[in-house]
Amino acid sequence: MTEINLISEYKCFDGTQGFYSHHSQTCNIEMRFAVYQPPQARSQAVPVLYFLSGLTCTEENFITKAGAQRYAAEYGLIIVAPDTSPRNTGIVGEDKDWDFGTGAGFYVDATEEPWRSHYQMYSYVVKELPTLIASHFPVQVERQGIFGHSMGGHGALVCALRNPELFKSVSAFAPIAAPMQCAWGQKAFTNYLGTERETWRNYDASELIITNKYTSPILIDQGTADKFLSQQLMPEIFERACHQVKQPLTLRLQEGYDHSYYFISTFVGDHIRHHAETLCG
Amino acid sequence: MTEINLISEYKCFDGTQGFYSHHSQTCNIEMRFAVYQPPQARSQAVPVLYFLSGLTCTEENFITKAGAQRYAAEYGLIIVAPDTSPRNTGIVGEDKDWDFGTGAGFYVDATEEPWRSHYQMYSYVVKELPTLIASHFPVQVERQGIFGHSMGGHGALVCALRNPELFKSVSAFAPIAAPMQCAWGQKAFTNYLGTERETWRNYDASELIITNKYTSPILIDQGTADKFLSQQLMPEIFERACHQVKQPLTLRLQEGYDHSYYFISTFVGDHIRHHAETLCG
Repeated sequence: MTEINLISEYKCFDGTQGFYSHHSQTCNIEMRFAVYQPPQARSQAVPVLYFLSGLTCTEENFITKAGAQRYAAEYGLIIVAPDTSPRNTGIVGEDKDWDFGTGAGFYVDATEEPWRSHYQMYSYVVKELPTLIASHFPVQVERQGIFGHSMGGHGALVCALRNPELFKSVSAFAPIAAPMQCAWGQKAFTNYLGTERETWRNYDASELIITNKYTSPILIDQGTADKFLSQQLMPEIFERACHQVKQPLTLRLQEGYDHSYYFISTFVGDHIRHHAETLCG
Repeated sequence: MTEINLISEYKCFDGTQGFYSHHSQTCNIEMRFAVYQPPQARSQAVPVLYFLSGLTCTEENFITKAGAQRYAAEYGLIIVAPDTSPRNTGIVGEDKDWDFGTGAGFYVDATEEPWRSHYQMYSYVVKELPTLIASHFPVQVERQGIFGHSMGGHGALVCALRNPELFKSVSAFAPIAAPMQCAWGQKAFTNYLGTERETWRNYDASELIITNKYTSPILIDQGTADKFLSQQLMPEIFERACHQVKQPLTLRLQEGYDHSYYFISTFVGDHIRHHAETLCG
């Protein structure tokens, strides 16, 4: 069993909020993640829900700001929040931009130098981390879901659409829904994956949904006052693609909400309920 | 009407979370505070609940980490969170210690040099701020409550016990319940108030409760794994004093909880309900 190190631990809603580090084989460096274990997990295995965060975040933002533990305790779900990229890899330029490199792994497996030696966040999230979680925490491995925010909403959709047998439920807050068509996605994909756009399709939810069937309804919340909505997020492209293939999607445009954790905290209860309906049934 | 400046504003649980600054006459410097307005406040005046934070905090910590907006929206309460001290006053040594000066105003009116020119947090919280709030937000001035954490729990108890006609309800998370008997309180009181201990009694809840009747039951939550419990917080002294004067007190020792916002977020719903029972009745 691969070792994990407990960094800190707090009682929260009668469960346990922990922060951990481990040596990631996939990213070839130490990685951190957070796990909330609800009270139900003391006596039985429970479903697990992964949350992928957005640009500049660490494993802490969602845990401290979203208020998710209350609902995880109510429904009896473990919540796992990984970091958003490898850190301190020594790659020149990793800290130069806020929307690329450190804090901006984009949940892809980089194929380009110098990033590919560490930036393997897709495989980390869909393979190494679930295996690690299953070996250290009381999870029902057949009941896993995934959600995320912004870059992490993109990551959640991509991970779920490519692995519907692993992630049985998916939702997103303000996801980068068509990354091939926005500046954030084009910058990340060019540098991590190279200029051959055909390879980008594997990491674009609006492309993947055309070819990959997904088994349960998808929930997306998007604030109408989100300053990134029209230029970077483009949920309407994903909505059209879902419509084309008859994928059940609930896209809720939330009047007046922005891109912040005040938006996430308002609707996180609805999202966790959405997952619980599939995972806890 | 005294001017206030909007720093930022976010929609949250169908209400509005705002951050503001203003020139404080009392503290003789710019001060910041946060206000959450629930959806009910769009159409009517509502009760108001003040939250005083602990050592090192600003007006932001409680707002981003406690998850209080959900309950404020449910019960229809405005929540106001001031900063914990004046900042950037130019007083030599204000940033030297984490438990005194900046971030550690202790909710007293300093009488000693060099602090007294700015450190007037007691009058700021019980006079200037409520007046300012009433002139800019739709509050029912006869329905105000106060609560807080650690140093802010001490502040909430002191402000309520000395002004029961102003603050009709009070509660605290892990308050410094007998500051005259702990190192944090003795350091703060010596420097802000001088060495004459008689003047300290006005700022010690365990002393005040003996002489000041309070009109509604007091709620205190205290984690048993709180590392400051026995040396700095001492709720048992306040409990004995309440018992002596037959003051209704619910002191809940919460098994395994520490001093963090994970503790506060777990029980903030209970506290807001406690206030709503008095203020919204």
